Amino acid sequence: MNSFGNNLRITTFGESHGSAIGGIIDGFPSGFKIDFDLLKEEIAKRRPGSGELVTQRKETDEPEFLSGISSEGVTLGTPIGFIIRNNDNRGNDYNDLRDKYRPNHADFTYQYKYGIRDWKGGGRASARETANWVVAGALALQWLASQNINIQACLTAVGSVSITDKIIENLIHVPSPLFALQTPEKASKHFEDEILKAKQKGDSLGGVVTCLITGVRPGVGEPVFHKLHARLAAAMMSINAAKAFSYGIGDKATLFSGLESLDIFDASISDKDNVQTRTNFSGGIQGGISNGMPIFFNVTFKPTPTVLQEVETIDRELNFTLLKMKGRHDPCVAVRAVPVVKAMAALTVADMIL
Amino acid sequence: MNSFGNNLRITTFGESHGSAIGGIIDGFPSGFKIDFDLLKEEIAKRRPGSGELVTQRKETDEPEFLSGISSEGVTLGTPIGFIIRNNDNRGNDYNDLRDKYRPNHADFTYQYKYGIRDWKGGGRASARETANWVVAGALALQWLASQNINIQACLTAVGSVSITDKIIENLIHVPSPLFALQTPEKASKHFEDEILKAKQKGDSLGGVVTCLITGVRPGVGEPVFHKLHARLAAAMMSINAAKAFSYGIGDKATLFSGLESLDIFDASISDKDNVQTRTNFSGGIQGGISNGMPIFFNVTFKPTPTVLQEVETIDRELNFTLLKMKGRHDPCVAVRAVPVVKAMAALTVADMIL
Amino acid sequence: MNSFGNNLRITTFGESHGSAIGGIIDGFPSGFKIDFDLLKEEIAKRRPGSGELVTQRKETDEPEFLSGISSEGVTLGTPIGFIIRNNDNRGNDYNDLRDKYRPNHADFTYQYKYGIRDWKGGGRASARETANWVVAGALALQWLASQNINIQACLTAVGSVSITDKIIENLIHVPSPLFALQTPEKASKHFEDEILKAKQKGDSLGGVVTCLITGVRPGVGEPVFHKLHARLAAAMMSINAAKAFSYGIGDKATLFSGLESLDIFDASISDKDNVQTRTNFSGGIQGGISNGMPIFFNVTFKPTPTVLQEVETIDRELNFTLLKMKGRHDPCVAVRAVPVVKAMAALTVADMIL
Amino acid sequence: MNSFGNNLRITTFGESHGSAIGGIIDGFPSGFKIDFDLLKEEIAKRRPGSGELVTQRKETDEPEFLSGISSEGVTLGTPIGFIIRNNDNRGNDYNDLRDKYRPNHADFTYQYKYGIRDWKGGGRASARETANWVVAGALALQWLASQNINIQACLTAVGSVSITDKIIENLIHVPSPLFALQTPEKASKHFEDEILKAKQKGDSLGGVVTCLITGVRPGVGEPVFHKLHARLAAAMMSINAAKAFSYGIGDKATLFSGLESLDIFDASISDKDNVQTRTNFSGGIQGGISNGMPIFFNVTFKPTPTVLQEVETIDRELNFTLLKMKGRHDPCVAVRAVPVVKAMAALTVADMIL
Repeated sequence: MNSFGNNLRITTFGESHGSAIGGIIDGFPSGFKIDFDLLKEEIAKRRPGSGELVTQRKETDEPEFLSGISSEGVTLGTPIGFIIRNNDNRGNDYNDLRDKYRPNHADFTYQYKYGIRDWKGGGRASARETANWVVAGALALQWLASQNINIQACLTAVGSVSITDKIIENLIHVPSPLFALQTPEKASKHFEDEILKAKQKGDSLGGVVTCLITGVRPGVGEPVFHKLHARLAAAMMSINAAKAFSYGIGDKATLFSGLESLDIFDASISDKDNVQTRTNFSGGIQGGISNGMPIFFNVTFKPTPTVLQEVETIDRELNFTLLKMKGRHDPCVAVRAVPVVKAMAALTVADMIL
Repeated sequence: MNSFGNNLRITTFGESHGSAIGGIIDGFPSGFKIDFDLLKEEIAKRRPGSGELVTQRKETDEPEFLSGISSEGVTLGTPIGFIIRNNDNRGNDYNDLRDKYRPNHADFTYQYKYGIRDWKGGGRASARETANWVVAGALALQWLASQNINIQACLTAVGSVSITDKIIENLIHVPSPLFALQTPEKASKHFEDEILKAKQKGDSLGGVVTCLITGVRPGVGEPVFHKLHARLAAAMMSINAAKAFSYGIGDKATLFSGLESLDIFDASISDKDNVQTRTNFSGGIQGGISNGMPIFFNVTFKPTPTVLQEVETIDRELNFTLLKMKGRHDPCVAVRAVPVVKAMAALTVADMIL
Repeated sequence: MNSFGNNLRITTFGESHGSAIGGIIDGFPSGFKIDFDLLKEEIAKRRPGSGELVTQRKETDEPEFLSGISSEGVTLGTPIGFIIRNNDNRGNDYNDLRDKYRPNHADFTYQYKYGIRDWKGGGRASARETANWVVAGALALQWLASQNINIQACLTAVGSVSITDKIIENLIHVPSPLFALQTPEKASKHFEDEILKAKQKGDSLGGVVTCLITGVRPGVGEPVFHKLHARLAAAMMSINAAKAFSYGIGDKATLFSGLESLDIFDASISDKDNVQTRTNFSGGIQGGISNGMPIFFNVTFKPTPTVLQEVETIDRELNFTLLKMKGRHDPCVAVRAVPVVKAMAALTVADMIL
Repeated sequence: MNSFGNNLRITTFGESHGSAIGGIIDGFPSGFKIDFDLLKEEIAKRRPGSGELVTQRKETDEPEFLSGISSEGVTLGTPIGFIIRNNDNRGNDYNDLRDKYRPNHADFTYQYKYGIRDWKGGGRASARETANWVVAGALALQWLASQNINIQACLTAVGSVSITDKIIENLIHVPSPLFALQTPEKASKHFEDEILKAKQKGDSLGGVVTCLITGVRPGVGEPVFHKLHARLAAAMMSINAAKAFSYGIGDKATLFSGLESLDIFDASISDKDNVQTRTNFSGGIQGGISNGMPIFFNVTFKPTPTVLQEVETIDRELNFTLLKMKGRHDPCVAVRAVPVVKAMAALTVADMIL
């Protein structure tokens, strides 16, 4: 089913080269004044065609809101329907894919599951779908900000160049509350070089996005099956190309003993609604429930399998064939995944708070 | 909510030192003959008190089935209710916890969320709950086996000793279909030494469990929000102490370029219902949907925070205090997590197939 | 939440005088060729402006499909997004309602629940929403027809003129399989007269819609909480102005004793997949599960509370005031409810079969 | 699925003559002190074996609570698991049913759906299941009472003797807030006579239960698909033998015109949180959302199809046969349905408030 969330629920539709994509945001609090400028900024971060590092498809990605918002821009409590027209359709770029399966794509699995597939640009499997999530997520981010909850994300690894562990170590040792999670300029330059190198070869690279959520009060999350981190994991693993999720000390948990990784409560700076720990190996979640400390996690993205070189593959009759992929694609999907990670984190946290 | 799954749904209850734990398995196929001996074997793997490496709590963990199964042991299609009595309750071991919060446990978060908590052995937050999952999962494993789907899991890292990457590399390069996933004896011995060393110090260690699912036909999984790996991630992150989930090439995805990690279809050995790829970086899932290749993933577990040394903490009035944890605990929870990973994988896959 | 169904799920949005209404149909089977002419016919039955008996609002009600359907009109298995533009908006007709609550409408309850409401024509509470259901239901009807399941509905009472009991008695005594459920011409004329009389007085009337579903095989429905008739009841009570639901012998069940209302199996005409009973007091459902006999039920609709006379009411400050309702409305909503009952029945049955 | 509710969810299991029935109550508020005496009283009302009018099966129906409640009787916020042992099993009374289908029962439909069925006393289809609902409902009733919400129900018709319309008329004209909904003594005697007459003939009668919910504040209910009355309808139609649901003016809605049935707001006695109407044709719900007025509805129950005379039927091979039903049964199930209606109303309202 194409729905995410329980109390704040987004349901989406749309193929990459259909006439429009869109969605319905259900359960959004009523009486909230939307900042449409802020919304545009968030959308711009994910929008294609905005630089050398990302796909050259040109889309304004401007959502048309059809319901749920008054003429004054205030939410009504009723479902918010929106659509985003697909303008820069070039379905013909993909004619070759009608009968050939691209390796590591969803071509074969969709065809097998449904007996039919929209082969133009990946159809529903395209990351174009994430434009819907960013629209919904941007509204959730605004509402969360009104509750003093802030979500930041940045790229911390591209290919073999990584500052992820360093960032996580920093977060575990509880930086100042004003800490801004962003890729340092030097690393940023390094990442850019790597991506351009891959692009020139017609190749692609994976990457890691790190996300930090601050301001969540204790008590958010369900104890057994709907742990806060289980919901975040499911949200992140819904993003195209995501391969791994790790929160708090995460996949480095084996490098510390129990004693070494205890987050000792700090009585000297704790009060009733704000219990602090000296370290944050737990990543802000204990027993599946937020403890009031910052929440942070990593998502690892694989290199996009759209590489601009001729590769061996099969056609629908399962015969050997060669395929030269064309189309306009991202040499490192992790770049544009940054706002998507934020959006999905926002939708998850808002859903669990509401 | 304490339910997991949609078509095959398990709903559970129980505190660690209450009179019983138990659950309801809803949606289990009718007319299936249960093998109760096999069930007991699976339960025995998770059962406490069975060796030096695990907690000394003595429980038979024998479930009493109350409904949904005929007197001949055949499922009726109606919900299967079961309970497991808690026999070896020693709530008094925990008197000290009535007013003190253990670091990295769910003590504070439960107290904050509910305003009350069962402080005896962690109450509902205890891993005792996973006995329920293993009962339900064991039935799911039997049914999956009848569909030629098999699930294996083993320990691949303890503390800093790890064979995880080696195992994953092996799985990526598509071993023989008869491949048995198990910890090699030498590694096993190594792991044991590490655990005993930690135990003697009253300390604990993290670990990694790797899981392999074979026999899943193509087409299982939902394309957007309920991708097969998103559901597996949520299932795994529900297990106590889980900190990271990684499938296929997973968190090593950044070490390969797009070209290097393409799983090229192998026309020579593919037929209609069995399309094979030469490598399996994808881990058997493409676009969120199974492609028929083996599915595999890792789960990283943190060291249990129950360490048998005096530690600093706070009490319910948020005052500084010291706490010496007692009780009977696992020096490496990853050991007993192996059958739990299998159980949750079985429940997830069966749910998505049914 | 604005979603209905589990396996076939419709999620909708839209205010009566917003720019558009619309929805997402999720879970519709792939590979199904849609008959767009048939779809238009079904929509036309509910469309306003089509005669003296219904509201004079002019809407083409033409849905624009945005996804989930190939250019050949074949479903893709992915969600089907659609919108219906609101063309004949006359929000100004409703200026008086900005601050006054109409009796028996949702004005007060929406305002109280959300702290804000779209007062133009009832906003989201308007029966305009049912245009969405008819679009989705029409697709479901087509798919059900391909499975030999047919759904008929007709008006069987208007005000105090009723043929409902007669129709139900006929259905209980198992008419020929070719039975067509339709309002006899004479009754139809009678209903029309009643409605026009009420309309001339600026008043309105209630009515009853009877629905017949044939071709459902035994075994559809869940035994305890999601009985087939419980799901149908919920579906019907979702329709604007519905006040009562009754299936099989229904609200006349007290007029027969147990012995008098037994549906005796008829061995002479039953075979393995087609077990027949001599009578059908049960209305095709036993223990919440279809038994293969025709399914039938009634829905009673209240008179629309939009009456074109001055009435006493209160304003938002809870002060006494007078209100003269304007706008274009139905003197008997049951007339246009006929295709809506069919649509919701189709969505319910298709959901439970899929 | 055997679950009911979203935020307060009950999941149940159990066959009529299995070793136990039981359930899990999930989402019950924490910190609530349970009154076990009150609980026993509510259970006693549904308990079989308590008089001439009901089945002679002897059951104490005492639930054993296994979790979710502290030793002081205070809820923990965690799921409340309970079981009720079946003591007075007489499976052998039903040997004749192993191969014969009782008319109007769920025997055939279960057998067809599952390919297997527990034929002893109806198995899962037995009204014994409702003992689970009464346990859960009794807890919900207590919690609702703490929120000043009270639910009353009584029998208003048996066979052709009915005071239902009179009671509803009374409720529409807004009786004093102290109004107690109960069957008048004279009617009660009349009902009893009818039931005993039917019992002596080995026959059975249908009946109507009327329910009144007071104290629900405005704003409860969802506007489109999960209207408060749609949820109540689904809840009521889940009860064994229920055939019709009608709320407010309900199935008499056609007897009044729009003007005649307007519930005019009464400015003189309304204040901000308590808006009153002069009449209550709406039954306390407008647009699917409570308006603060009393909520009331009827449920019609068919005569139980267990009649103690020989009847014609078929066996599993679909051959004609005769069947003399034995066992212990209710000559009028509506009698014991009264506490079940209350329980399901309580679970529905509590679910929608929480």
